[in-house]
Order: sequence, then structure tokens, then C-alpha cells
Amino acid sequence: MDLVARLTAELGDVVTIDPVRLEAVRTDKSGFLSASAPLALVEASSVDHVQTTLRLANEAGVGVVPRGTGTGLAAGAVGDAGVIVLSVAKMNQIIEIDPANELAVVEPGVINADLDAALEPYGLWYAPDPASKAISSIGGNIATNAGGLLCAKYGVTREAVLGLKVVLADGRLLTTGHRTVKGVTGYDLTALFVGSEGTLGVVVEATVRVLPRPAGDVVTVGAFFPQIRQAAAASSAVVAARLRPAVMELLDGQALEAIRAYLGDEVIHSAMGHASGDGFLLVQFDESPAPETVLHAVELIEQAGGQTRVSTDAATGEQLLSIRRAFHPALAARGEVLIEDVSVPRSRLADAFDAIAEISARYGVRIPTVAHAGDGNLHPNFVVDGGAVTPVVQQAADALFRVALALGGTLTGEHGVGILKRHHLIDELGPDSYALQRQVKTVFDPRGILNPGKVFEIIE
Amino acid sequence: MDLVARLTAELGDVVTIDPVRLEAVRTDKSGFLSASAPLALVEASSVDHVQTTLRLANEAGVGVVPRGTGTGLAAGAVGDAGVIVLSVAKMNQIIEIDPANELAVVEPGVINADLDAALEPYGLWYAPDPASKAISSIGGNIATNAGGLLCAKYGVTREAVLGLKVVLADGRLLTTGHRTVKGVTGYDLTALFVGSEGTLGVVVEATVRVLPRPAGDVVTVGAFFPQIRQAAAASSAVVAARLRPAVMELLDGQALEAIRAYLGDEVIHSAMGHASGDGFLLVQFDESPAPETVLHAVELIEQAGGQTRVSTDAATGEQLLSIRRAFHPALAARGEVLIEDVSVPRSRLADAFDAIAEISARYGVRIPTVAHAGDGNLHPNFVVDGGAVTPVVQQAADALFRVALALGGTLTGEHGVGILKRHHLIDELGPDSYALQRQVKTVFDPRGILNPGKVFEIIE
Repeated sequence: MDLVARLTAELGDVVTIDPVRLEAVRTDKSGFLSASAPLALVEASSVDHVQTTLRLANEAGVGVVPRGTGTGLAAGAVGDAGVIVLSVAKMNQIIEIDPANELAVVEPGVINADLDAALEPYGLWYAPDPASKAISSIGGNIATNAGGLLCAKYGVTREAVLGLKVVLADGRLLTTGHRTVKGVTGYDLTALFVGSEGTLGVVVEATVRVLPRPAGDVVTVGAFFPQIRQAAAASSAVVAARLRPAVMELLDGQALEAIRAYLGDEVIHSAMGHASGDGFLLVQFDESPAPETVLHAVELIEQAGGQTRVSTDAATGEQLLSIRRAFHPALAARGEVLIEDVSVPRSRLADAFDAIAEISARYGVRIPTVAHAGDGNLHPNFVVDGGAVTPVVQQAADALFRVALALGGTLTGEHGVGILKRHHLIDELGPDSYALQRQVKTVFDPRGILNPGKVFEIIE
Repeated sequence: MDLVARLTAELGDVVTIDPVRLEAVRTDKSGFLSASAPLALVEASSVDHVQTTLRLANEAGVGVVPRGTGTGLAAGAVGDAGVIVLSVAKMNQIIEIDPANELAVVEPGVINADLDAALEPYGLWYAPDPASKAISSIGGNIATNAGGLLCAKYGVTREAVLGLKVVLADGRLLTTGHRTVKGVTGYDLTALFVGSEGTLGVVVEATVRVLPRPAGDVVTVGAFFPQIRQAAAASSAVVAARLRPAVMELLDGQALEAIRAYLGDEVIHSAMGHASGDGFLLVQFDESPAPETVLHAVELIEQAGGQTRVSTDAATGEQLLSIRRAFHPALAARGEVLIEDVSVPRSRLADAFDAIAEISARYGVRIPTVAHAGDGNLHPNFVVDGGAVTPVVQQAADALFRVALALGGTLTGEHGVGILKRHHLIDELGPDSYALQRQVKTVFDPRGILNPGKVFEIIE
């Protein structure tokens, strides 16, 4: 009996080979499409389903691709010929909210925003806030160590994960970590699983740390600049002054042009008056900032050439934030984009924007870009005319990766390596680290069945 | 030529076999004394010294014990017969302070408090603050993932470490991590090294994240309670109200009695008036807390039975904090103690104090205890009459570990496993995790030369 037949015999309806369903898991939000459909899709709704799937697949030596809600941007959860896709999207129960210890226990398919909504009545908050929070799952956030707008101040996913339950490649259930903030018994396997993109085990439960919701008023400053370089310099000045914004976002000229076309001028005028420019900086302070903090920030931004608009009420602040939030929908409305994700030391942001403009001109590719200025994470969006990533777009993306590494940065801040960046991984890690990491994978996955072909290329 | 002769030939004066120097590295601040002196002590002052030592030791199959300033409390850095102790205490240069990116690059021997002092002129701050910060090194803090008084709000060492340079067992130099807050290229080897107690490699450089120094005024509340259980309940009430103290410390009756004898009644009266009791709670808010926050905390503490003293100036706040700070000197002045370190979910603190009182009575051992209430980390101090840990003290400590695990906690919050807790490690990890972690160690240290006999017992 082959693996799919055995899985069906043990798990029943949980296993599907419906071609339409299999087609859907050949891709993710990156737009990448694998060469062929996988053997089957298992839609687990219990830990036991996950354990059975891995046990049988490991015995058969067949690859398993763990998948959440499919919102990944690096093709890390796509199925191809000869593998089983194991979805945990239906394992979406919030198991426990423990207000006294400020933690929650969740299944991996819980949507980030759903967890946050469930915490709100307790005055608690789940801080990691990827832009995809309305559609991405906690399990996927863990797989990619997702960040977001607020993480320079409030931390990335790794800082929020206290412990995990993970099904190992052979079907055993492993528990890692603690329900306590501190703990140093043995190696930090919890952190090792966070960001491991389904190559070491399948997360079936997470104990996450939650925080008191920031209290008090929000103050938001929007500013237009003639050039993005000036906006980047202004963000550096705000950091250098040791002010602590919760949000600090940069939009370049190509991004602004797309947003203007998408939202309409009147929406931007309503938020920003008639100020305009080719660079935009958005700074938001939370926890009722001292007035002198806000005045200092405004002074620094104006000294750098910004025309500012200050909002001290939540509604106008939301208007300003909506300019930033319109970025992805504005580009999606125009067609396909390759959403990239590099980080540089934040002092090099202006250099990174210059380099992106140069790459855009050299390759004749439009690259509207947004950056989380607080942590140096840039999302250059390569506009793909006709919907497919052409060789010239790929060359332009390769040039971007070289720039990120040359500026002391990293290939991926939060989207992961998946398939799309695996060819560049060794350039960042170097051969020693690369070799060690492959050996670590072998400890957890001796038969190499977990997410084959992702992150680490198969080299044989 | 034997290993010591080869080391001396290559490294010269860096290597010592002076019996007085070797005697000193048979112990640490735990009071544990190894059976015999090590073969030699290498006092590295460069990366090259570390690489040479490990290369030669690995070739010879001789164990190497990495050591910082020797302030460990779990005997994790003590030398015994047949091994080389490799001290990095003299690698104590601050290599770089980068204010624009809010990071510092340091050698491992830099003292925690020295780094903090160097950052102060920039308005920056190194948040991890173990009680040993005046004497412990950053490398040792990394080896044990040290926490401290402030970490419930500001994070433990792991959250502060962005990247490392590590010499591997065979002498190769490995670089991990990023200079950016975000990054998900490959596995989080940085987090794997943090807390690994010198069993995976020797940290020779760390890039650490620093924060703006908290601005504004500090408000401190001290409170005496008839019983420690009430003080623990008050701390839970403060957390439940979602107030966010920077410091929250508990002292039990035996701890208070020792502190009173050490400081004298007048010092305590000066800070607290004539209030008295068998439980003490210290709560400190930073960043100019709103008056309603402080009033709410005082109300909750008094409802739980506390007699409070509120200090709104730094000098009186420091007086209150000095009561807590006197705990370790007060016990040291009376003789030897075994300083333990367990964590429980903070909602179980009151139960943990009850259990400690029960263990104290059952075994006839005094166990004055302080706890970081914000993160559930307790430091019960077992008073060792005559200076040696007797079987009955060991039995009492074993009972404490069982309580910590039964309450959903962990064997060690921040001191590490070292030698003293290695017999209990498998009880917390379980056999699967224990086996996997030993295999991970083998990837990094195939010949088993790094800190032999620590953390993982040698089972052959």
C-alpha cells in the first residue's frame, strides 16, 4: 500500500487528492508556482493527525511540507511533485488565555489578529504584528519569525514565544521551553524552532507571552520630504535623539505615486493637507508621549526638510497610518509584484534607498519601496509586468541581495528563505555556518523529509 | 610533547601551571570545589589565543572549560583533573559603541556594569542586570542567559544579543546573527549559543542591542506584610491590574531577619518608618509613571494587607532598593549559603513560598528567599552551617526542584545547570529533548572536549 493509501486508511477524510485542492497548495502569496501538484493534502485538525502523517511519511521516506494559511512570501510552504502537504490551518483553537501569567496557549492555525482580539477584553495584547496579521497564522509567524511595524519597540515573534509543542520528523511529540519568562535548562530549542520554516518539526501548539495593551494616547506625525533620502535621515535623527516611537515607516517616491493613484489625492490631502513630495515618513508614539518628545521629533523632522502634520487623536492618526497601509493594496491593484524583504543597519537606510533607485534605473524595473525605519527592514516591491518574474527582475533582485549584505544587513528580515532565497543563503551564512546548520537539521530530521528543497538546497 | 607543553610553546606566558592560580579555578561563587586542579590555565587576550587553545586541545582530545570572571553559581566554569581552563576574562575591550544603530560590540570579558557605564554618555543602556552586574562578564551572562531585576519588563540576555563570534571546538571562528533587529536567514544559532554554558563553543565577541535609557522619574513603593503569602498576592494583583513595574521584588521573613541584623533597624526605619512584618514587597515604576498608576498600585498593595511607603525621589527610592540589595551581603556575612534559582509561573509564587517554608521546617534548614515577582524567579538560599553542603541540605534542594517542576516551573531561571543541576536536567527536559540536545552538542563538539561533565552528564 502506498503512503497516500495508508494515510487515507488511518486518517480518512482528513486526506484529500482532489486536484483543485492540490493545485491551491502549489503556491503562496509570493506568486511562486511549483512545477507539479503534490501527492496529497492532509488537513490536520488534531495533534494525532500530525503525528500519524509524519510517522508514516518518515517510514516511507516521503517529504512533508508543513503549511499554515499560505500567506508566506518566500514559497516556503508550497507543495511540489512527490510530497505530502500537511496543513495545520484547521488547528485554530485558542486553548488557554492566562491573564495572571500574561500568556496564551494556541494551536498553530490561529490567525494572529484573532488571538489579539481574544486578548483585548483582558487588557492584553499580542505584540508581533506582521502586515499580514489579518490573514496569517501564529504557526506561520513562528516559522518565519515574523516581525511587523511595532517590533523595534516591542520585539519580534521569537521574543513572544515561551514554549512549543512540536511533532518531530518521526512523529514523536516534543515539548520545549517554559511558561516562565526566564529559564536556562539546556539549549534554547524554542528559539531554534522559531524561524526554522518547517525544516525541523511541525509546531502543533505554542505558548506565547502577551503584554499589557499600551495605555494612553497615541500621537502620530506624518511628513513629506522632497526626497526619500531626507526622510531616512529624519528617521535616523529621531532615533539618535533617543525618542522611542512605536511605529516609524518610510515610503519612497514610487510607493507614494502608486498610493496616490490608489487612494485618490483627496484622502492624502485630508490627512496631510497640501504637502507633497517624493519621500514620506510616518512616526507614531504610543503610551501618551510627553509633549516635549513630540515637539522634539517634529523639530528634527522639519530640520531634515519635512513638511509635517501632527495628529493627537486616534482617528486622524489612523488616517495617516492608512497611507502606509494602502501600499500593498495599491501595488496589488496594478498587477503582480515580487515583494522583497531585506534588512540593513538602520543607519544605512538612506544608502539602501539610493542603491534601490540605482538598481531600478539600471535594470529598468520599477521598485516602489516601504521600510520599517525603526529596525532597518526594507520591503522593495519589484513590479512584474505580465505577472511572471522575468530574468531581468531576478537579476535586479540579486543586485538587491548583494547590496543588503554589502551594507552589513541580511537577506530576509521576516519573510524567510523558503525556495526564493535558498540560492543566496550560503552567501550570508558562510560555508562553516551553512554546514553546521545542515548537520543540525539532520539531528532533527535524519531522513530529510521535512520541507525538502526549502531553505537549504538539496546538494547531492 | 604533551598538550600543556604544546600550548606553552605556541602561546608562551598566556599559559600557566602555577598551583595557586590553578587552585583558584577549581571553584566559583557557588562554593563548589572540584576534586582536583586542572592541567593548566590559559588566560587568552586575543581571539587567536582561543583558537590555538581549542585547535590543540581538540587534536589531543583534552577537555577545555571556558571561564569568564568566575562568578557563576552552578559550577559551570570550574576546572577539574585533566582539563584546560580557558579564561577570557582578559579579553575585556569594548570594541565599538554604535549609537545610530543602538548596539555595542564587546569582548566577552567586559564587565556588565562597565559596558553600562560606557553607554551612559550616549543616553544608552544595557538592560540585562543580573545582581552580579558589578563583577560578572558579558560572556558569562551570555553563557547563562542571565536575567536580573528588570527583565520582566526589559528582557533577558537572549533578547539583547544580536550576534556572536564563537570559536568552535576545532578552533574555527564562526559568526552568527546580524547587526539588525530582524533577520531569519537560517537557524537562530545566536540563541542556541546563549545559555549553552560553554558546551557548544567559546564566545569571543558579542554584538548586543542597547536601549535608550528610560527617561523621567522613578517612583518606588515598599510594603511590609504580616506574611510573605500576602506580599506575593499583592504582587499578583499589581500584575493583574496591567500596571507595568520595572522592578518587583519579594523578601520572606527569614530574608528580612538576616537583612535587619545586617543593616540595623535604623536603616530600615529610615526607609520604611516603623512598619514591620514577615514579608516585604518592593515595586518600582520607571519612565515617570502616571499618578493614577502609582495610586492604583498602593491601593492594591494595602488591600492585600501591606503597610506602604511611597518614594517619589530617586534618593529615597534607592534607600528602599538597598533593603533588597542587602540580601546577599547579609547572608554572606553569616557564612556559606547555597544560592538556588528556580522559576515558577508567577501566579504560583505564593504556593512556592509555602512549599519553601514547608521544606525549611521538614529538613530543619533555614532557607531565606528573595523572588523576582515580575517573572516568577525565586532565589531560595540554603544556609549551610559549617560551610559544606550536607546531605540534608542536598535533600532539601532536591525537594525544591521537585516543587518547581510540579508548579509548572523550571530548575534554573538564570544561573544555569553547570555541575550542580545536571542530575535533574533530564527530569525537566524529558528523554526525547535530552537526547536531541546531546546530539546537537555532538554536531558542534564531536570529540566532546567543550566543558566536559557540565550540563549534560557524561553517560557512557
